[in-house]
Amino acid sequence: MTVYLDNAAATPIDNRVKKEMSRSMDLCGNPSSFNDGGRAARVQTEQARAQIARFINARPEEIVFTSSGSEANNTAIFGVADKFRSGHIISTAIEHPSVLEPIGKLAGEGFKIDLVSVDAEGFVNPRNILNLIKKDTVLISVMYANNEIGTIEPIREIGKLLKEYRSKLPLSARNRGPLFHVDACQATEYLNMNVHELGVDFLTFNGSKIYGPKGIGVLYVKRDLEIKPLILGGNQERGRRAGTENTAAILGLAKAISLINKKENKKLPKLQDYFISNILKKISDVRLNGPKKNRLPNNINISIFGVGNEEILLQLDKHGIHAGSGSACTSHAVEPSHVLKAIGVPKKYLNGAIRFSLGRQTIKKDIDYVLKVLPKVIEKCRSLR
Amino acid sequence: MTVYLDNAAATPIDNRVKKEMSRSMDLCGNPSSFNDGGRAARVQTEQARAQIARFINARPEEIVFTSSGSEANNTAIFGVADKFRSGHIISTAIEHPSVLEPIGKLAGEGFKIDLVSVDAEGFVNPRNILNLIKKDTVLISVMYANNEIGTIEPIREIGKLLKEYRSKLPLSARNRGPLFHVDACQATEYLNMNVHELGVDFLTFNGSKIYGPKGIGVLYVKRDLEIKPLILGGNQERGRRAGTENTAAILGLAKAISLINKKENKKLPKLQDYFISNILKKISDVRLNGPKKNRLPNNINISIFGVGNEEILLQLDKHGIHAGSGSACTSHAVEPSHVLKAIGVPKKYLNGAIRFSLGRQTIKKDIDYVLKVLPKVIEKCRSLR
Repeated sequence: MTVYLDNAAATPIDNRVKKEMSRSMDLCGNPSSFNDGGRAARVQTEQARAQIARFINARPEEIVFTSSGSEANNTAIFGVADKFRSGHIISTAIEHPSVLEPIGKLAGEGFKIDLVSVDAEGFVNPRNILNLIKKDTVLISVMYANNEIGTIEPIREIGKLLKEYRSKLPLSARNRGPLFHVDACQATEYLNMNVHELGVDFLTFNGSKIYGPKGIGVLYVKRDLEIKPLILGGNQERGRRAGTENTAAILGLAKAISLINKKENKKLPKLQDYFISNILKKISDVRLNGPKKNRLPNNINISIFGVGNEEILLQLDKHGIHAGSGSACTSHAVEPSHVLKAIGVPKKYLNGAIRFSLGRQTIKKDIDYVLKVLPKVIEKCRSLR
Repeated sequence: MTVYLDNAAATPIDNRVKKEMSRSMDLCGNPSSFNDGGRAARVQTEQARAQIARFINARPEEIVFTSSGSEANNTAIFGVADKFRSGHIISTAIEHPSVLEPIGKLAGEGFKIDLVSVDAEGFVNPRNILNLIKKDTVLISVMYANNEIGTIEPIREIGKLLKEYRSKLPLSARNRGPLFHVDACQATEYLNMNVHELGVDFLTFNGSKIYGPKGIGVLYVKRDLEIKPLILGGNQERGRRAGTENTAAILGLAKAISLINKKENKKLPKLQDYFISNILKKISDVRLNGPKKNRLPNNINISIFGVGNEEILLQLDKHGIHAGSGSACTSHAVEPSHVLKAIGVPKKYLNGAIRFSLGRQTIKKDIDYVLKVLPKVIEKCRSLR
């Protein structure tokens, strides 16, 4: 039996997406070429762009295709920094490395940085962010949902407070900032992605978390906000990102988005509850990391006292259960997770964190199997200590 | 009848590459995940990396996967600039925009830039490059073959001269530069790609010019040369490029490389000669842009007096012939080509440039068809003036 519970790292690709990509790979033209081959690729690329824009209630020209969520995050942060040249940036202590590292680099270049702390469940307090805003704050970047512990941040509330704040600024200062960027990679499948309701200026999402292709990301850039490109060269993406358009991946992403079914995903909270309550019941000295409420419905992150997570993951693998260590992007890191440290997980629990992330394909039978295997695996690992 | 002659903008994907990508899309794991799903993706990604490394006589750890040739060029140039912080850069006037634009940006940040001019056929004189080297020259970037006019630059000779130059430096200065970057995107299918024989420190190539996938590029980075990443975040690609590895595109690229058949491509020079000599014979007031010798075997670039290239391309399209206007990456630009200006094309020929780029699928019948249609099309366009 194989149970794939690492969907937060990468979802399996939907067969209908695969089929669409296979079809679109035959559009051999370069979408930027001035001939019928290029035109066919361009027309379909632009149709996909329009469809993807509708999904977040944006306009087609507000969509910038990138090669990943990481590239989209980098583009937003460096793009704003390059525009303003100096200033103050606010973010949180639990962002993805593709937000924290660019911000860290900017700190070295003279930008002032404030990383807001989070509470024990990983929540950011919108008021704390507002209180940090200075005259020269150019960017606020807050993730929509945390990739390790599933905490859903109050983006809409932050957006609303920001709107109020900006409305009190003199007209001349309103275009200056603070601009609001949200990394929504983990949220796309489950949460409201309407950019106007969220009140964001930039929004990042990607294909590999929604049963779509790897190698494709999106940065929504609000109209009239000019930003400098990260990759320079050709005039693709209206001068905001150079490089031949990846037609097949773009069309695959559009297909993946059309297949998101928020109703169908309503089965997940029940499975999640069942999983969490039984783990806490069946295993001693275990801790749920992250909140009980306002948590992504596919995320379960637990810490197990007395064992390292690599041992457990290896044993689970032997039983056909594929789980994760918290974040694929830092899985080879020796340091304990910055997210778990930020929510104050006690030291004895820091090294035993495991993330189970459910997916569309997950059924109760899978969970029951894990609930049968996991206690034995932990017992075995503990006995070997 | 459809004749696709825009292979320098994008090659049609080989069916065997498509099949390999379709297969590898089922490797749903994240190559960076610590579980069997991730491991399977990782093992195959690393096998592909090793195969791609062998193709250029490099080591697997010298291969950095990017999302395009443009990204690879940007990574090399900004990576070196970020490493040295200041200094002198040498390049040529006919580079791809994804080289010229990053260098232009660095000029604005205090780097000193020299763009070497080329002769009337587009050739760079290696001595001219050597003569420009200063104590603080950190980077020399020269393309292997020009994307618009097919001129093959004397990379090996430049590499050799550079090696001699470096060998005379005091030991302490040898690691400082000048480092040698070559954009080989147009050359991969046809020319020697052995990095040691070429004497390069960085080499760029990509999938979409060799019948492989769009959305994948490679930057070869010589061992022990640490460069700063362009996209920051996770530790993928040994910390040189963040973002989930695009397994399917990487495996597709490896497949495409395995299918390069330099013997089979030997048919092209003959077709090219036939094409060029007949165009010059059949059409009056036409000019071949670029050299007769040391030219990519798939490239034909002609300028036609008295007509704009868009008119001709439209008419050719109507007859099923898909050609290009010189460069897909600048096809929507209003300015005449910087390459044609650099080789001194007279003004009256600047707006009528058309690039026919042959491919594996091209046969004599295709050329004969174009030779039949093109004179009529030009006559018609001229008569409408």
